Amino acid sequence: MIPTQVKGFKFAGIRSGIKEKSKKLDLALIFSQTPCAVAGSFTTNRAKAAPVLLGLKTIPSGKGQAVIINSGNANACTGALGLRNAKKMIEATAKALNLSSDLVFVASTGKIGIQLPMEKILQGIPEAVECLSDSQDSLSLAAQSILTTDQFAKIHGVRGKIKNKPYTIVGFAKGAGMIEPAMKPASSSLHATMLGFIMTDAAIPAKLLQEMLDRIVETTFNRITVDGDMSTNDTALLLANGCAENEPLSAGSAEAKKFEKNLKEVCETLALKMVEDGEGATKVVKILIKGAKNEEDARKIAYSVGRSELVKTSFFGQDPNWGRLLAAVGYSRATVDPSKVDIYYGSVRVASRGMATNAEAEHKAHEVMKAPRFTVTIHLKQGKSGFELWTSDLNYDYVKLNAEYRT
Amino acid sequence: MIPTQVKGFKFAGIRSGIKEKSKKLDLALIFSQTPCAVAGSFTTNRAKAAPVLLGLKTIPSGKGQAVIINSGNANACTGALGLRNAKKMIEATAKALNLSSDLVFVASTGKIGIQLPMEKILQGIPEAVECLSDSQDSLSLAAQSILTTDQFAKIHGVRGKIKNKPYTIVGFAKGAGMIEPAMKPASSSLHATMLGFIMTDAAIPAKLLQEMLDRIVETTFNRITVDGDMSTNDTALLLANGCAENEPLSAGSAEAKKFEKNLKEVCETLALKMVEDGEGATKVVKILIKGAKNEEDARKIAYSVGRSELVKTSFFGQDPNWGRLLAAVGYSRATVDPSKVDIYYGSVRVASRGMATNAEAEHKAHEVMKAPRFTVTIHLKQGKSGFELWTSDLNYDYVKLNAEYRT
Repeated sequence: MIPTQVKGFKFAGIRSGIKEKSKKLDLALIFSQTPCAVAGSFTTNRAKAAPVLLGLKTIPSGKGQAVIINSGNANACTGALGLRNAKKMIEATAKALNLSSDLVFVASTGKIGIQLPMEKILQGIPEAVECLSDSQDSLSLAAQSILTTDQFAKIHGVRGKIKNKPYTIVGFAKGAGMIEPAMKPASSSLHATMLGFIMTDAAIPAKLLQEMLDRIVETTFNRITVDGDMSTNDTALLLANGCAENEPLSAGSAEAKKFEKNLKEVCETLALKMVEDGEGATKVVKILIKGAKNEEDARKIAYSVGRSELVKTSFFGQDPNWGRLLAAVGYSRATVDPSKVDIYYGSVRVASRGMATNAEAEHKAHEVMKAPRFTVTIHLKQGKSGFELWTSDLNYDYVKLNAEYRT
Repeated sequence: MIPTQVKGFKFAGIRSGIKEKSKKLDLALIFSQTPCAVAGSFTTNRAKAAPVLLGLKTIPSGKGQAVIINSGNANACTGALGLRNAKKMIEATAKALNLSSDLVFVASTGKIGIQLPMEKILQGIPEAVECLSDSQDSLSLAAQSILTTDQFAKIHGVRGKIKNKPYTIVGFAKGAGMIEPAMKPASSSLHATMLGFIMTDAAIPAKLLQEMLDRIVETTFNRITVDGDMSTNDTALLLANGCAENEPLSAGSAEAKKFEKNLKEVCETLALKMVEDGEGATKVVKILIKGAKNEEDARKIAYSVGRSELVKTSFFGQDPNWGRLLAAVGYSRATVDPSKVDIYYGSVRVASRGMATNAEAEHKAHEVMKAPRFTVTIHLKQGKSGFELWTSDLNYDYVKLNAEYRT
């Protein structure tokens, strides 16, 4: 069983009426009984939504105790009024919880360019506070309340121990389209509309928490691409309230490393669930680049291949059309000699030194591609650097989900 | 009537059997009765097909008299054997035409990673020579012989006069998917699988011809994107045989400018036909960037918007979802303040200073988007530079055409 409860945290998910037509849950609340150390990571898009602008200001304090999140409206491209509305959400939440507003974060996801229906939201906030609970299913309700085009709620959790003190990490996230996070932690960099909230009862100083999140975001949320579209709202928040009563973790210690590993597992699982949900995705594919001259080249090639529409439709068609991959390697602007490159689907080598191996290999590769999840390895054989990126296929449902006229 | 004949040129298009299953035309030949000045532009993909590698070597001579082109097989990712086969195609054509092989160019398009069926091609070449003709429909046969996933042949031509000497320019092209040319003329830069062949009977020195092609490629073939995938085979060749007997054009003259304008019209028309044919495209959309700080920023934004899968599905859905456009502006890595940006569909302004104008504008914009061709203008209001890019929508047919398993 995945843990869904974490000491000292309460969750709520309600319907405030933002999603007028679907009548689905649309307002989530996270609350800790004690102030938390907080770390955050936000979109690097220059068109930042109002909640992101506020979060960027608050996160350097490293402190927080509650997060209010609405879905159905992104509060992005909404100007000064949007900013005032985001502040009102914070103030109303602080008031209803009897907290300082410095301890409240806000996040939004949904339609862009439309002002929030503030009356509904301001009525909903006290209701969400009333519904706060530490029951088994309260996390799930919160997780459902932040969904937009997602097909399913994304939750993960792990348990561990720090010197005999048991602790828990739980997280929930949303994201299916507009996914290519390049979030920038307060100190470093991440991107997608993905929202991710990770809660732990472990005691960790805020500075160390942010360092861990920076590293983890870079190798989890920042390593997925569904459509290459970076959102205006991407946000990852990590709250640690210390209720596990462990001796606070210190940077570089064995305990900190073990904790970071568990934290990464939670983030990685949530990230892969986003790719899996990737607006109609039928395939989750790891693009593994090896043998690059340097990491920058490996990264360029991974994104060039992972974003290619021709490559992604070939994944949908289960067609080991490796020529499309090699073409994407060739136009990646990386320093690469295509005549050295080997390409594998799973463990099947379909191209050797930039040329086809044999027809049997292609048939075997076709079998590999029938699985919902597989790895494509591109070995450049010109150095020792690598890069990993997760992508999805491109198919009819992606078009269907995104082409509909909104009104 | 578009002219399809040009003095001194003959064309042929035959079925050699490369397209085993479809039995369609697959081998085209262009021949001039006298040696031509030749200019060329080739893909900047590092994975260059064998014919491109040969073309890059021959083009600096500025001379040529024949072009042999096959479809159904790209002769890309085919190693040393592929290179030998491309040379054999040149030699066989030179022999059948009784020319020096220095005067023959080769181009290929089709499947990647498979060796050419040389027996069929070497039998086909003399047959193509036999079929050479200057009749009304020979250009059309050649144009049909170079198609792959294209839905229709792309031909255009114009007539003009240089000091009372009438001349003609005709061109044919192929390209529908794997379209984002960034071709590099022998001296400068172009890209897509697009092949374009332009023939004129005007007399123009090779150096001037190449300069013109460089400029024109940059603002026509290099300004289209269908799927952002740059091909291994992109090639544009321009042949001028001087049969119009005009005094050779000189750089900077009024005549040269007028000629260049006509040449651009031919290339632009062919380029737009490619977008129109863009693997199931239902919309051809001009992305017009205005008010950028500099051209590089304008270019980044145009490509960010024109490639966005979310933007392109919204074109298919006729949904003026300008928030997706603004998000793509925001993640373009250009220096831009989204809160200044205005966005128009046709002449309808849907966003002003980064925010929605009104619901009526959105309804009007939806009407604009019903047309098969429209312009989206993004005015950044932070400078005086601009950029133009043509793109298509993303829809079910694109997925269908590209997802099928090849065998």
